Amino acid sequence: MLHFENDYSRAAHPAVLEALAAISDTPYPGYGSDEVCDHAKERIRKACGKPDADIWFLVGGTQTNQVVIDAITPPYAGVVTVESGHPNVHEAGAIEYSGHKVLTIPQHDGLMDADELDEFCATFYADGNYEHMVFPGCVYVSQSSEYGTVYTKEHLRRIADVAHKYDMPLFVDGARLGYALTSSACDMTLRDLAEIADVFYIGGTKVGAMFGEAVVFTNRKAPKHFLTVIKQHGALLAKGFLLGVQFDALFTDDLYFRIARNANEAADRIREALRDKGYTLTLDAPTNQIFVTLDEPTHARLEEHVLLGFMEKADDTHTVMRICTSWATTREETDRLIDLL
Amino acid sequence: MLHFENDYSRAAHPAVLEALAAISDTPYPGYGSDEVCDHAKERIRKACGKPDADIWFLVGGTQTNQVVIDAITPPYAGVVTVESGHPNVHEAGAIEYSGHKVLTIPQHDGLMDADELDEFCATFYADGNYEHMVFPGCVYVSQSSEYGTVYTKEHLRRIADVAHKYDMPLFVDGARLGYALTSSACDMTLRDLAEIADVFYIGGTKVGAMFGEAVVFTNRKAPKHFLTVIKQHGALLAKGFLLGVQFDALFTDDLYFRIARNANEAADRIREALRDKGYTLTLDAPTNQIFVTLDEPTHARLEEHVLLGFMEKADDTHTVMRICTSWATTREETDRLIDLL
Amino acid sequence: MLHFENDYSRAAHPAVLEALAAISDTPYPGYGSDEVCDHAKERIRKACGKPDADIWFLVGGTQTNQVVIDAITPPYAGVVTVESGHPNVHEAGAIEYSGHKVLTIPQHDGLMDADELDEFCATFYADGNYEHMVFPGCVYVSQSSEYGTVYTKEHLRRIADVAHKYDMPLFVDGARLGYALTSSACDMTLRDLAEIADVFYIGGTKVGAMFGEAVVFTNRKAPKHFLTVIKQHGALLAKGFLLGVQFDALFTDDLYFRIARNANEAADRIREALRDKGYTLTLDAPTNQIFVTLDEPTHARLEEHVLLGFMEKADDTHTVMRICTSWATTREETDRLIDLL
Amino acid sequence: MLHFENDYSRAAHPAVLEALAAISDTPYPGYGSDEVCDHAKERIRKACGKPDADIWFLVGGTQTNQVVIDAITPPYAGVVTVESGHPNVHEAGAIEYSGHKVLTIPQHDGLMDADELDEFCATFYADGNYEHMVFPGCVYVSQSSEYGTVYTKEHLRRIADVAHKYDMPLFVDGARLGYALTSSACDMTLRDLAEIADVFYIGGTKVGAMFGEAVVFTNRKAPKHFLTVIKQHGALLAKGFLLGVQFDALFTDDLYFRIARNANEAADRIREALRDKGYTLTLDAPTNQIFVTLDEPTHARLEEHVLLGFMEKADDTHTVMRICTSWATTREETDRLIDLL
Repeated sequence: MLHFENDYSRAAHPAVLEALAAISDTPYPGYGSDEVCDHAKERIRKACGKPDADIWFLVGGTQTNQVVIDAITPPYAGVVTVESGHPNVHEAGAIEYSGHKVLTIPQHDGLMDADELDEFCATFYADGNYEHMVFPGCVYVSQSSEYGTVYTKEHLRRIADVAHKYDMPLFVDGARLGYALTSSACDMTLRDLAEIADVFYIGGTKVGAMFGEAVVFTNRKAPKHFLTVIKQHGALLAKGFLLGVQFDALFTDDLYFRIARNANEAADRIREALRDKGYTLTLDAPTNQIFVTLDEPTHARLEEHVLLGFMEKADDTHTVMRICTSWATTREETDRLIDLL
Repeated sequence: MLHFENDYSRAAHPAVLEALAAISDTPYPGYGSDEVCDHAKERIRKACGKPDADIWFLVGGTQTNQVVIDAITPPYAGVVTVESGHPNVHEAGAIEYSGHKVLTIPQHDGLMDADELDEFCATFYADGNYEHMVFPGCVYVSQSSEYGTVYTKEHLRRIADVAHKYDMPLFVDGARLGYALTSSACDMTLRDLAEIADVFYIGGTKVGAMFGEAVVFTNRKAPKHFLTVIKQHGALLAKGFLLGVQFDALFTDDLYFRIARNANEAADRIREALRDKGYTLTLDAPTNQIFVTLDEPTHARLEEHVLLGFMEKADDTHTVMRICTSWATTREETDRLIDLL
Repeated sequence: MLHFENDYSRAAHPAVLEALAAISDTPYPGYGSDEVCDHAKERIRKACGKPDADIWFLVGGTQTNQVVIDAITPPYAGVVTVESGHPNVHEAGAIEYSGHKVLTIPQHDGLMDADELDEFCATFYADGNYEHMVFPGCVYVSQSSEYGTVYTKEHLRRIADVAHKYDMPLFVDGARLGYALTSSACDMTLRDLAEIADVFYIGGTKVGAMFGEAVVFTNRKAPKHFLTVIKQHGALLAKGFLLGVQFDALFTDDLYFRIARNANEAADRIREALRDKGYTLTLDAPTNQIFVTLDEPTHARLEEHVLLGFMEKADDTHTVMRICTSWATTREETDRLIDLL
Repeated sequence: MLHFENDYSRAAHPAVLEALAAISDTPYPGYGSDEVCDHAKERIRKACGKPDADIWFLVGGTQTNQVVIDAITPPYAGVVTVESGHPNVHEAGAIEYSGHKVLTIPQHDGLMDADELDEFCATFYADGNYEHMVFPGCVYVSQSSEYGTVYTKEHLRRIADVAHKYDMPLFVDGARLGYALTSSACDMTLRDLAEIADVFYIGGTKVGAMFGEAVVFTNRKAPKHFLTVIKQHGALLAKGFLLGVQFDALFTDDLYFRIARNANEAADRIREALRDKGYTLTLDAPTNQIFVTLDEPTHARLEEHVLLGFMEKADDTHTVMRICTSWATTREETDRLIDLL
């Protein structure tokens, strides 16, 4: 069976596992107060071009979204996201569990429109009853988006400008940041992102790590007593050094971006094959997620040999499926998939 | 100045204030465990035709929505409402504060469509990822709606059927229940409502009381230890007998419905005048809320003499305003308003 | 039957009900944005000697504690109170419902010891693991306390000093503030309190109002968008003017303190009689709450004629009961009680 | 430097890391729906003698306590624990964050007394005001306790009986379960525990795993839609198979208990040496945690060579320190420590 159902089906990149093995006999202090974490943070600061960035390691994506959004959003406010945003759809209400409303605006191929964000906020503050409503308190976007699309530098900067106009921090979910930044459609570097976003995270779980997301507060310290806030959410890993060692490996010799690029190259080849063979791409996404609308016979035939991800029913006889490559996808797997198409 | 800006601008109906005065020298036990409350509950049970209904008095509408929805919705679930539903728009995130997501479907003149509710739930359970999503856990509708429209018996019964099909209780917000049930467009009685809804409330704040909402659990007891749950939400009134005495007065000699009818009659006369004079009714609402689209000169002229409620900007030169009658609106006030139109 | 079971068994002082009747035909805007509230606030500011105090009206005590403590306590912190503090014992977990831990230190006849508060905080910050613990975030005391005792000016100032030393605001629950400040044992005025506390409330429910607590932020504005925070807690009264009119009446001609004094005078006479007749006062409390340890025969005999409040079983044959006077207690009722003793 | 500061300073047991390496090239489905997890659960069910136990893997201890306690405790209730219980002291308010109060009773060398639990509940239900208080909703104990002590079978069964008498499930925190069950002072097996507790967890983080806690619902299914509840808390690991593979290794050939026993043997030797050399053991704890009261010179001397854990200041010249062994402590390390004493 070929595996293209998601980008988190394999344990970790060999270099990450080797780094883990290398420290397995060494004792470290708990909760991230260790030199391995310090070292990894220093590497990330350097990669971001932000020597003063405040960096924290968390375990998973939904957890990170919950902890960060809760920490940076005022109590009377919610987080603004597009309707397809992960916190709005696939986090089982983790944001609401923390007491905040998810405020939604339309998505465009998974992306937020800066003007629509501006209009949403302007309408809010123009409403005579706004004090009875949930304030827009921070802005959430994902890079790449849930649909595999990416923000350009200019696009994201405009969103940041609108966010700041209404006194909101911009938070960028980078669960798939590697795949975004190495996409041919993306003109943004990690340094650019660190200039634009107030806080973002570098996703490890889907890009080579066993688990782990590195949260980067770019322009200021994390909210006060952030360690306690993390602990309060049940999100503080006892052996924090396990997070440090993984990110240290991923940010050695540019590993994080090299393996991300592999996924995009595989996806590019698959997209080209799909187009050549007359398939309908549901969406023009330039990263490791390919959305394709399949008729039932094709769908049935492919599913005998390949695991794909379910997106939605397009109509009675068509289904939108996701083909997802990853850092681990091999040339051979890609070839076999293309043969099957 | 004429007051048509809302239906909660006057203290209370004289009969309510008299009832209050009549008991002002009598001591009662606290927290609603008094005979006045018992008596009022008995009257309401009778009016509902539900001798076993479990009845609780709360102070305000948002509070009631928060407490009831939190109590009847499972922890992994949210409340389904139309987009214009009060908990989604004008409760400052009180539902999310209690940990639950507000799940929205489209509104049609403020009302929910039973088929769309069915489709929303069917789509949810058909989604391969539904365990990562917020379950639909209860259904909220308001009677009358935020736009002054009403559900017919058949309409509401279909919504209840869909709710029950997916194992959800139906909760009816009756902040303006009096105005709904006495509307010429409504074929539903209080007994009908008590047959259809699993829990609903009879709004006092907007229909003659100083404050107070009577929550009716029709087919079963309130959730376990509901008094403690109310207290936990900071919603338990020390002098609960103040709630009892008001509802006792309102359910004596049909007062609640008689004074509600007054508001509808005034609204009907205003609606007729608006139509006669060529105004554009934004919405065809048959209760005490009238939505009318005004051009700027008319808007400016009216505002010199009448307080109206702001609804929204229709376009650059038109505004949707609400004319709201109440149990207290006099024939003279209505005449003066009509003259001004 | 004589009523000495609590101080919230009667609707309201006649002057409050008259003030209510006087405005019952006048329409007012909603949610406290009315001139009656403005006027009442101005009176309270004057009585406090704080022309810039920020004042808000809420409905009940537990609600006020929940809203205020949640609003002034950082997310990673809890509220420090003595073990007998109302939020710790009798609020059904309303503070925890809002996400904060109640941190307790010992009580001494219901009062907090400033040195113990200091030591609690010092121990906290000296603990190597304090980042894994709940920070002390604000200090709660009640004046008078749950046991009827009072803080002197010097006592409260020392608590405030310790609170500020650890960067915590001091919040004083004044559900029975009138009874405290008019007690012969209390050397503190309302102005003194307003100098010492960062935020406190003037209890109306138990001192002459139907309901209502006036929250006073003395040295600064309420937390940002406090109206929205109140609404989010389901605690915003639609007809806010009902709160304003009551406090306006209570702060006209010193009514609030005059009627409070009545309760203390009655209590003083009862205490004297108890001592004369050889009863055991459980506690030396100088306000309107008297705690007395009764043997079973006496207890049984009294309960035939008087309603008392249950405090706790002292041992197998004795019970601690509370005799509670109020603003409404008459000379005749007090005489009859004394005769019965 | 010798490391005796805690039992979570090393990555994982070699067998765990080998098992991880062995599956690192295999793709698995997400969120624990994989065969590795199934296999590990089957092993645990067998070890528990509970073929129908419902088993879930979570990442860390505080997280597990928060998720489980929130899920099994009614909304109007709290969790009963001894004062020294981890959720009360060292979880940064994670329980309160989830809306529940932590109700405390005294600890006796870290353990709960069944009679005191009974009395606490009896007093609660005998209190006339109990509906205004937080109900006891579940019971939490830790095996071994925060002080390294253990419950015998009889002791724990009596606590379970009291819990059940008041309709509460008994939840046993087994963060250090291996060290408890292999202690010479403990007459309880895993099967015994599974008979007595309603839900417990087998701690991996401190006993050989990189991370991970296996929650066992012994007599019934987990609360409805528990996966969604986990996700809502931000606690669902994407690569759930990483948890499965670790527990599969730990429950192969009794590894979990074998390596736990190693820690106890090391601790026994250290305890013996301490006694021989005249040290004061603060507590008679029979597991891998040794609490010893050190005078300043000894403390200073030891700290030059050994990392210990801080417990508390005993007095001005003495400190209670924790010596903690683990599955990874070697004979040589123990010898060196003993030489230093």
